[in-house]
Amino acid sequence: MTPTSGVPEVLARSREAIAPAMKQAVERLSPDIRRLASYHLGWTDRAGAPLGAPGGKGIRPTLALLSAEAAWADAEVGVPGGVAVELVHNFSLIHDDIIDGDRQRHHRPTVWSVYGVGPAIIAGDALENLAHQVLLEASQATGPAASAALAEATSAMIAGQADDIAFEGRRDVSVEECMAMSAAKTGALLGCASSIGAILAGAPPATVGALRDFGSHLGLAFQAIDDLLGIWGDPERTGKPSGNDLRQRKKSMPVVSALAAGGEEAEELRELLLGPTATTGPGSPDGPGTPIPTGADQGTDPPGDEPGPGTGPTAGTGPTAGAGATEPLPPLRADQVERAAYLVEACGGREWTTVRAKAHLDAALGALERVRISAVPHRQLADLAVYVVERES
Amino acid sequence: MTPTSGVPEVLARSREAIAPAMKQAVERLSPDIRRLASYHLGWTDRAGAPLGAPGGKGIRPTLALLSAEAAWADAEVGVPGGVAVELVHNFSLIHDDIIDGDRQRHHRPTVWSVYGVGPAIIAGDALENLAHQVLLEASQATGPAASAALAEATSAMIAGQADDIAFEGRRDVSVEECMAMSAAKTGALLGCASSIGAILAGAPPATVGALRDFGSHLGLAFQAIDDLLGIWGDPERTGKPSGNDLRQRKKSMPVVSALAAGGEEAEELRELLLGPTATTGPGSPDGPGTPIPTGADQGTDPPGDEPGPGTGPTAGTGPTAGAGATEPLPPLRADQVERAAYLVEACGGREWTTVRAKAHLDAALGALERVRISAVPHRQLADLAVYVVERES
Repeated sequence: MTPTSGVPEVLARSREAIAPAMKQAVERLSPDIRRLASYHLGWTDRAGAPLGAPGGKGIRPTLALLSAEAAWADAEVGVPGGVAVELVHNFSLIHDDIIDGDRQRHHRPTVWSVYGVGPAIIAGDALENLAHQVLLEASQATGPAASAALAEATSAMIAGQADDIAFEGRRDVSVEECMAMSAAKTGALLGCASSIGAILAGAPPATVGALRDFGSHLGLAFQAIDDLLGIWGDPERTGKPSGNDLRQRKKSMPVVSALAAGGEEAEELRELLLGPTATTGPGSPDGPGTPIPTGADQGTDPPGDEPGPGTGPTAGTGPTAGAGATEPLPPLRADQVERAAYLVEACGGREWTTVRAKAHLDAALGALERVRISAVPHRQLADLAVYVVERES
Repeated sequence: MTPTSGVPEVLARSREAIAPAMKQAVERLSPDIRRLASYHLGWTDRAGAPLGAPGGKGIRPTLALLSAEAAWADAEVGVPGGVAVELVHNFSLIHDDIIDGDRQRHHRPTVWSVYGVGPAIIAGDALENLAHQVLLEASQATGPAASAALAEATSAMIAGQADDIAFEGRRDVSVEECMAMSAAKTGALLGCASSIGAILAGAPPATVGALRDFGSHLGLAFQAIDDLLGIWGDPERTGKPSGNDLRQRKKSMPVVSALAAGGEEAEELRELLLGPTATTGPGSPDGPGTPIPTGADQGTDPPGDEPGPGTGPTAGTGPTAGAGATEPLPPLRADQVERAAYLVEACGGREWTTVRAKAHLDAALGALERVRISAVPHRQLADLAVYVVERES
């Protein structure tokens, strides 16, 4: 990439480099699975007809290519890494949409809502597996290390997702727990994306580690921005309903930090989002730092009797309802969403999250200074990080 | 293992060798995921309290250990392979139970029916990923090849599962398609189990290939027996209701071969299992070999509006209903199950499947003769194959 490239140019060139390899990987899937994957990636409509528009922004594969260049290799060396990370990212989106009962993503019906839950589970499984095939075939010398790094990041991502679900049933999620969950759920895969090209290039561990730290912090900044957009984002740009995270009572960074502020407004917010304290069962004390409830809390009533996604994820509970100890609450009404957004801001949750986004951006940029990497990709990684934090969708 | 060991002794010793490594692998999962995995594996009850009884028979890990010994290595060399294959097998069971809407497995409530669909999806994802971590850390020299072989087998298994779902919506599944699906869904992973120890031992490709062929044929024999037990198995031994596969209108080997026999009884069976021909939509002609319908057949009506597993998988449709072009049919009544079982047998489906099981057992044993492998594990592999085909549960 030329030194004069701005972020849009860098993203466009990366898309061009990744697209053929991504198509080639998806071609390997069996026809029924390929159809779902192509639909999910925005390549085809639900009937399988090709669409002109490209998929997402492609930030993860771009990070992978830049990380190869940062280690003085050709961008091409990072391509299998970019493809693999993109496959894992999309596997997680397909499964997350089932788990959260979300019917829409980027203004399009989600895979499960078009093809059914079973095929969507299978499509996600196939993408997770394909990612390792791509990496192990990429290079005998460095593919295994890249595959191991991806498996480690995937493991963290999945654990973060499990925590996210467990938090739904809890009143007492601390700010630290929330940040640890975000670091696992979002930071680990971005850390992998930002270093996997360097791993494939055979870069020394210090370089790989600095690039991974860059990506992990970027992931936390990214999640902080995502959480802000989930409350105050423009529905036209985000493709999600206004105040969607509040409507779904999500324990996002702004909410958790606002709740931690204490005082009357924080208490009002707590009651609004989590219901009156009286509904909390025994064994869920309202203090921070309480360990995640164990299975003993939920044994008697099989939570599987909750409705699946097909019967109405608009109920906000999703197919996973019942995994926690408390009864799922209905989604907030529009007036409650508005009041909650006011309270989160009044309790400093918006400011706190904005400051955290900035701090993690700074930490990401700082990580790049720890080692000597190639100058142009260095600048492009930094520009991309700023772009991610300044985005509005 | 000593030369005098019978199959029960071989299985018991393999369980002893695998158990600590399996526990160690599962220990790496985050607490919430570990709880589900331990429950699924039969180690704990739903509240997390330890259970004394061991899990399944452990045929797959036993094959992995014997394949290491077949290549003149210690059984210990095959342990990470056995663990990895067992993790993938169990990931597929957890997800299959969601997809099929099954509430019971081995006389116990399935993971999703206890903990919810979302956590069960995540637990499966985590096991799939963990399998690769185990292999990539097992050996720098041979771990990557083992991981690649497992990814290839997993890919085939997932494609087979997708075909299995697609078949549900079709009237015209041919015997060849049914066998290809079974080869992918069951044969690929057993082929991997039967060769992964040899791969880890660094055995030559011819040895690995012969052991894989042994396992693939064993898998088909295994599936044939499974399909027979699904109709004529003793519910006390199988842990499933009598005639369960017929009740669910499954297109298993006995059914598909019976339907292919033609004649009046085959037509009666077809109407009983698949409904009157008139309900078939256009584009699903009733002849064999028609390609799997593409998305174009199913575009207009989002199948996601079907009920999820929580609302009643007893309806037999499962959460994936709607992925095919035709309306899902209710499960067969007890008297219909009995009549269908009679018809399958009258059309030769029971005989055909029994013959195929025997033929694949012979092919499996023949594959072992193609290369020179260590004599004791050779005999134990052969004994295990015979045991699998003669099992009654």
